[in-house]
Amino acid sequence: MTVVVTREEMAAFLRREFPQTRVSVEAIEADGIVVAHDITEAELRPGGTVSGPVMMALADVALYVAVLSRIGLVPLAVTTSLNINFLRKPLADRRLIGRCRLMKLGKSLAVGEVWLYSEGQEEPVAHATGTYSIPRRPDAVVTV
Amino acid sequence: MTVVVTREEMAAFLRREFPQTRVSVEAIEADGIVVAHDITEAELRPGGTVSGPVMMALADVALYVAVLSRIGLVPLAVTTSLNINFLRKPLADRRLIGRCRLMKLGKSLAVGEVWLYSEGQEEPVAHATGTYSIPRRPDAVVTV
Amino acid sequence: MTVVVTREEMAAFLRREFPQTRVSVEAIEADGIVVAHDITEAELRPGGTVSGPVMMALADVALYVAVLSRIGLVPLAVTTSLNINFLRKPLADRRLIGRCRLMKLGKSLAVGEVWLYSEGQEEPVAHATGTYSIPRRPDAVVTV
Amino acid sequence: MTVVVTREEMAAFLRREFPQTRVSVEAIEADGIVVAHDITEAELRPGGTVSGPVMMALADVALYVAVLSRIGLVPLAVTTSLNINFLRKPLADRRLIGRCRLMKLGKSLAVGEVWLYSEGQEEPVAHATGTYSIPRRPDAVVTV
Repeated sequence: MTVVVTREEMAAFLRREFPQTRVSVEAIEADGIVVAHDITEAELRPGGTVSGPVMMALADVALYVAVLSRIGLVPLAVTTSLNINFLRKPLADRRLIGRCRLMKLGKSLAVGEVWLYSEGQEEPVAHATGTYSIPRRPDAVVTV
Repeated sequence: MTVVVTREEMAAFLRREFPQTRVSVEAIEADGIVVAHDITEAELRPGGTVSGPVMMALADVALYVAVLSRIGLVPLAVTTSLNINFLRKPLADRRLIGRCRLMKLGKSLAVGEVWLYSEGQEEPVAHATGTYSIPRRPDAVVTV
Repeated sequence: MTVVVTREEMAAFLRREFPQTRVSVEAIEADGIVVAHDITEAELRPGGTVSGPVMMALADVALYVAVLSRIGLVPLAVTTSLNINFLRKPLADRRLIGRCRLMKLGKSLAVGEVWLYSEGQEEPVAHATGTYSIPRRPDAVVTV
Repeated sequence: MTVVVTREEMAAFLRREFPQTRVSVEAIEADGIVVAHDITEAELRPGGTVSGPVMMALADVALYVAVLSRIGLVPLAVTTSLNINFLRKPLADRRLIGRCRLMKLGKSLAVGEVWLYSEGQEEPVAHATGTYSIPRRPDAVVTV
């Protein structure tokens, strides 16, 4: 699957479409993408761990970036389903890293998997799979 | 399944444990619970719809409230998995409502389903199922 | 959502397309469908319970019947994802019942939920949600 | 995660516990297990493809084998949830291969992922994640 968007274009797109996001685009490569998220105090759960919704949100962005990196910056692509398994407690003082790889990129549906890590740790903290519906009009591609 | 926590106790617990949350507890009843979430500008996606992570976060809180309403205010209960299907675009100017019912409340695992709605609408915007791991020490129960 | 196939038509379709199936169509109604499956010795797991795959297979058929009852007998509709939570042990000597309701019937995607029961029991044994991809050519409809 | 059961012991266990199964155990290794399933006529769907339930059943067995290869031959371990994404049509004339790796092996819960392939093909036909509940009494281990 060919990459059609650079890391810089994707970062600019996210900043413009989601001005409030704290997710950074770390890498866009042929075999997958990497995003990262700084943890703030507000995102910690009782016990000093990162909240589940923060992990779900990063998984969703990771899938979005992976899909858009292959189909172009189409803001109308939407998540249709997401399944996540929480595996271990993330560390409170590390960035959360999401690595996403697409399993399938069809004409109307893309499916991908995301591994989430606390930065620098080997064991994943969560694993998600998600499905994206791809708008049918390829002319909806946005240029940055 | 007997309710062991009142709506007021649950609301106080959420405010204390998650001071930053904007979720309100609307009802705690024998057959399920209801939570609501005000949508802010920052949570809207391109196209004026509510972002997926906002819906996932509300589904997660709904499950948490449903489980705690039956087992008591045990802050150590953790989500182990969540599966969500996004069905329709939520309205940008309505509160998001989550109705959760437990399917199973075992000794170590609880399973529930959540229907999400834009307030006042009949058709759901999303449906989630989730699993909660229940800490084994029942003496960990917190009193408010 | 209007029903466009009768119970008898659906039963004949399943017999023809899946000659080996032991699933019977019990009801096709405006708010959902009901299918049933006789349990044989070969489908029991150690401990005398029904195997997980038997439940998954019935959930899949239930979704298929629900979708086809609304879009017509289109053999090309395919499951794209299925998520199942196993809740209780089914009884070994009862039929397995599947009740399916569609949450969404879009142009290219249908989403439904299935509750599975041991016949005559009130508590469900499993809950599944699934997604069906609908072929784009509505002229592919088969007449029985 | 250490392997505590050999391929031969696992194969003998499956034959005894599930005399009707056509799944063979191909490999049990430190980083995962491989199982295979011969496709019969009865398992084909309209259009000559392998039915979804056959894939779900193989994913379930793959998870079961992966868990038991690490915890010993405990027949009481039960699947608590399974999520599967169907990616491509399996070939009708090839064995179905399942490769499973555990993401987490906790005291009471194991989580794994399974990739399914048509034998000899590079692209996966399905991807599943599943959760197993592990019985608490480790003395329930069965010796072959």
